[in-house]
Amino acid sequence: MGRRINLGLIGAGRIGRLHAGHLAYRVPGANLLAISDIAVEAAQECAGRLGVPIAVQEHRAILENDDIEAVIICSSTDTHAQLIEEAAAAGKHIFCEKPIDLDLARIDRALQAVEKAAVKLQIGFNRRFDPNFKRIREMVAAGQIGQPHILRITSRDPAPPPISYVKVSGGIFLDMAIHDFDMARYIIGSEVEEVFVAGGVMVDPAIGQAGDIDTAITTLKFANGTLGTIDNSRQAVYGYDQRVEVFGSKGMVTTANNTPDRTVYCDARGVHSALPLYFFIERYTDSYIAEMQAFIQCIREDTPPPVTGVDGRIPVQIGYAATRSYAEHRPVRLEEIG
Amino acid sequence: MGRRINLGLIGAGRIGRLHAGHLAYRVPGANLLAISDIAVEAAQECAGRLGVPIAVQEHRAILENDDIEAVIICSSTDTHAQLIEEAAAAGKHIFCEKPIDLDLARIDRALQAVEKAAVKLQIGFNRRFDPNFKRIREMVAAGQIGQPHILRITSRDPAPPPISYVKVSGGIFLDMAIHDFDMARYIIGSEVEEVFVAGGVMVDPAIGQAGDIDTAITTLKFANGTLGTIDNSRQAVYGYDQRVEVFGSKGMVTTANNTPDRTVYCDARGVHSALPLYFFIERYTDSYIAEMQAFIQCIREDTPPPVTGVDGRIPVQIGYAATRSYAEHRPVRLEEIG
Amino acid sequence: MGRRINLGLIGAGRIGRLHAGHLAYRVPGANLLAISDIAVEAAQECAGRLGVPIAVQEHRAILENDDIEAVIICSSTDTHAQLIEEAAAAGKHIFCEKPIDLDLARIDRALQAVEKAAVKLQIGFNRRFDPNFKRIREMVAAGQIGQPHILRITSRDPAPPPISYVKVSGGIFLDMAIHDFDMARYIIGSEVEEVFVAGGVMVDPAIGQAGDIDTAITTLKFANGTLGTIDNSRQAVYGYDQRVEVFGSKGMVTTANNTPDRTVYCDARGVHSALPLYFFIERYTDSYIAEMQAFIQCIREDTPPPVTGVDGRIPVQIGYAATRSYAEHRPVRLEEIG
Amino acid sequence: MGRRINLGLIGAGRIGRLHAGHLAYRVPGANLLAISDIAVEAAQECAGRLGVPIAVQEHRAILENDDIEAVIICSSTDTHAQLIEEAAAAGKHIFCEKPIDLDLARIDRALQAVEKAAVKLQIGFNRRFDPNFKRIREMVAAGQIGQPHILRITSRDPAPPPISYVKVSGGIFLDMAIHDFDMARYIIGSEVEEVFVAGGVMVDPAIGQAGDIDTAITTLKFANGTLGTIDNSRQAVYGYDQRVEVFGSKGMVTTANNTPDRTVYCDARGVHSALPLYFFIERYTDSYIAEMQAFIQCIREDTPPPVTGVDGRIPVQIGYAATRSYAEHRPVRLEEIG
Repeated sequence: MGRRINLGLIGAGRIGRLHAGHLAYRVPGANLLAISDIAVEAAQECAGRLGVPIAVQEHRAILENDDIEAVIICSSTDTHAQLIEEAAAAGKHIFCEKPIDLDLARIDRALQAVEKAAVKLQIGFNRRFDPNFKRIREMVAAGQIGQPHILRITSRDPAPPPISYVKVSGGIFLDMAIHDFDMARYIIGSEVEEVFVAGGVMVDPAIGQAGDIDTAITTLKFANGTLGTIDNSRQAVYGYDQRVEVFGSKGMVTTANNTPDRTVYCDARGVHSALPLYFFIERYTDSYIAEMQAFIQCIREDTPPPVTGVDGRIPVQIGYAATRSYAEHRPVRLEEIG
Repeated sequence: MGRRINLGLIGAGRIGRLHAGHLAYRVPGANLLAISDIAVEAAQECAGRLGVPIAVQEHRAILENDDIEAVIICSSTDTHAQLIEEAAAAGKHIFCEKPIDLDLARIDRALQAVEKAAVKLQIGFNRRFDPNFKRIREMVAAGQIGQPHILRITSRDPAPPPISYVKVSGGIFLDMAIHDFDMARYIIGSEVEEVFVAGGVMVDPAIGQAGDIDTAITTLKFANGTLGTIDNSRQAVYGYDQRVEVFGSKGMVTTANNTPDRTVYCDARGVHSALPLYFFIERYTDSYIAEMQAFIQCIREDTPPPVTGVDGRIPVQIGYAATRSYAEHRPVRLEEIG
Repeated sequence: MGRRINLGLIGAGRIGRLHAGHLAYRVPGANLLAISDIAVEAAQECAGRLGVPIAVQEHRAILENDDIEAVIICSSTDTHAQLIEEAAAAGKHIFCEKPIDLDLARIDRALQAVEKAAVKLQIGFNRRFDPNFKRIREMVAAGQIGQPHILRITSRDPAPPPISYVKVSGGIFLDMAIHDFDMARYIIGSEVEEVFVAGGVMVDPAIGQAGDIDTAITTLKFANGTLGTIDNSRQAVYGYDQRVEVFGSKGMVTTANNTPDRTVYCDARGVHSALPLYFFIERYTDSYIAEMQAFIQCIREDTPPPVTGVDGRIPVQIGYAATRSYAEHRPVRLEEIG
Repeated sequence: MGRRINLGLIGAGRIGRLHAGHLAYRVPGANLLAISDIAVEAAQECAGRLGVPIAVQEHRAILENDDIEAVIICSSTDTHAQLIEEAAAAGKHIFCEKPIDLDLARIDRALQAVEKAAVKLQIGFNRRFDPNFKRIREMVAAGQIGQPHILRITSRDPAPPPISYVKVSGGIFLDMAIHDFDMARYIIGSEVEEVFVAGGVMVDPAIGQAGDIDTAITTLKFANGTLGTIDNSRQAVYGYDQRVEVFGSKGMVTTANNTPDRTVYCDARGVHSALPLYFFIERYTDSYIAEMQAFIQCIREDTPPPVTGVDGRIPVQIGYAATRSYAEHRPVRLEEIG
């Protein structure tokens, strides 16, 4: 065991409370010292429940606390870039939820601040730490499928978010598919150079009225020649459908969904088994813990974070390329974007 | 392609018609010349449909036909031994459905007749030719699971036979489990030395009133030390459940049931796939064809048949040991039987 | 049983011999009277082996034979349209292997000849008769997945054809993916309106030198709004990968590959099961038989054939749209093609 | 959230440390106040790591601590009964690892002490809390398989314990199969009335020299007529094999093993997936946590513990019946034992 890392967490919403719980109980070496939230009762409730000594409204109290070595930014997206800059200026290492920002220039300024301060910045693309996807990445990296030729990602949510959220989300590509764009880069180990989108409104007309789509097939071309296809839906009635398949010159690796149990029931009507785990909270628990463990480890061992600021920037760029491809009904090259 | 083998088939009941159809269309080198049945219209109907030139009531017409080299005995069990002796005396090679007889001494006389006549005799334990079980046998024989330790057989019918049949069937062990006893010897490649049965009447009280049971767990001890367990039921509402598993020092091999298709359907209630193929006709089509192909081949190439008369005798002996074990509520050694 | 249909088969190459064997043994009601091949020995060998009475070099002998009611056209693609016209003129019903022709205008003339002669024409898109895909179609048609949103087809061959064949094949979309284009229309029950292709040469540079590609992802838009994605490769080292998945408002249905057996082997290194059936001959045996049974049935019952001439034309049109999309690097609407 | 329950843990060996970690971090409402171990450094190390305030050598310090409401007994088996009596006398609720003792009379005295003191006693049959087995029990209890007819349990360890442990373990039935005996009662919801064992030494001759066996098939008869079969091995080279299947009048439910991931890899040799989780620590993590949560809950809500003292006694009785059945080579009724 290495030394304990004192942490402050900014933003006690759903994802903040999730991380706080993990940091309190399931991440050896983490010592959560303070929680802030502009709704201070949220910070107080969470801190009280987990035995965290400090609960404040102002994140500045965390940044000014010399005992705190690193911050976990879980506030709303529009505050991420600013908080990254402030935390960097305060010399804190930073874990920040995705996306850094929806403006690429704004992201770049934040990343420059991090670089100047020479602190660590890890972005919350937690799915990289999912045992299924991590295993696929390892097999691809080890050459077990040979040269990758085709990547297939299926990513379907169990239910769409509220329309009020859809309206400010940045759209399906920046809000939902951004995880898949990160997964694509991570799995193949090469950059996306071009995207083409076919999409539509099939789940709920209100999503279309909000200016977004809810169903999409995105074709990717990678720098190393691999081709990719992602299919997204805002609503799979059977639950959260999260699968990846990579096909290459020496073989193929694919993954089934995770389920709450492995029972199989046969009756006169058929053979029945469990639905996938319902949504990201259930499915990605292990990956949320593992990403925090990795963050603590990279601070302790002074190694680069496993998901960098650039890893946070590129999926946003792909998201814009996808958005433009859908709007202009043509393949769009990444270099056309910011 | 080798020479064509002229065949006569005795008994145009369900299994006889099944074999006749395969011999007509799906067994290269087989030439079905004649069909006999004591109900001569059954022979005529079958022969007419398949283009078989001769249809007779008397099986003697087949045995006396010098163009016919081999016979397929599909008549009722109580005629098998007599027909084997007659066919052997007539110098015909013989394929005979299981069981040879329910009387071990009667079996022995029939086998002596075969030996004396130096004709080939193959018994209809078709499941040895099922692709799943054959593959398991090959893996065990090749040492891929090392020394076998535990054999598990699940063998459950979709529905019980009529009570009228149950009464004359010889009981669950001689009628139904006999296939599993053959499978056990075949898979392990060693002889069963002892059996212990726990059984009961759970499916239908009428089966109990007929003096039989409908559910059983049979424990086997093999000469080479392997232990086995067979579970039998006369009624699985989800269809014909036919699985084998062998566990050994280097690994384990098991098989799932065959299904009519490989589709998987997910809806809001669960994940659903197809039931097993309904019963032996559907499940074992390929093995019925393959056993006939093997019979033709062993005649053409003058090699020993793959399922011998002794292979036909021993499962009957195990069946009696199982019957006695249930009756006397104790483990019974094979050497106690006939 | 209905009346027997006398048939003549034109072209005793690989697929012709396959159909001939099925017609001889496995299609009740079919009576194969004659086989022709410009290499007359091929016709003679096949006829001799299967007991077909007539073997000739000239297909005209088949068309002039008044006993023959229908023809099976298995000759090379460049002869299909001409033979269809001649057979129609002779009043024969026609089963013709895909594609009808690579020239849409030539196809149209052939279809007009069929219409004028009022004979039946069935095209050899055998995969529609595969139990897995047929079941998926039935479930989609029955509304079990609700409104379809996303179609995914994976279609990968175990090994590329010879380069000499690639050069005259018409390219991956007209030669290989044409089956998938038919499957897409069949499964969704709606017409493709637009395609977009991303492709490359990954399997063998010689395929690229021959002017073709060997790997492709094709995005489809259907008239009913469904989106589709097909991934094709000329070489999957693990065998013939043939999967379809349909996702909709009420659920999802998908299919695994067929395998030669269902055994699962566990050793110290992992859990292992069988590879898919190797290639189309192994995988689609049942569907080849079923399409012939359906052809015989539609003649006997005077019903429309299950795969029409229009069904043969449209996948060629989609193939040209895909070819142009790849060449011009843009989505192409079907209405732009012929 | 209910009130926090102050706990003391006795015995900081492997399983004690496991429970301590769960109590510290993953069981809401548990407050681990003290750890004792006769090797006091073990208690100190564990307490220090987990922030537990008290670490002592003498368990009496725990029993005399009025702040402590319940104890977790994880010391060696030969101390369980004595500690149960002392804890009961001290008025503490008790969680005790299995088995209570290997002497039935000794168990009875301990259970009497518990009854007299009117404290709660929960026995550590953790597998009842495994999501797979729990789901099966729920389905059986809900009547989804109808009347149960056949129970199959496969329980194979990845590797045998040291011979030194085998010698004092009480034998395979009291040490290893005891969990399966509990599972059998739990799943079927009826008592075992008779057992028959076939067993042998196949894994390691040294186990035989130590007076034990390493491979067994146990047949069970239940009071409600259900038949059961358990197969046990001390060594499955592919890992911990833990499966249960129940077959009944309306259907069947079975469970596959849990694996670290759901990836499937296809190469030219076959289709490969992950081995089962290695051993009980990996496989049953969730069930260890759940049993502690249930213990805390039954104290908080003053409800009966989900695994009672009687549940702890009966599997020992079955273990003796199995041991005698093997020794005397006959079916043994439970009523013959203690």
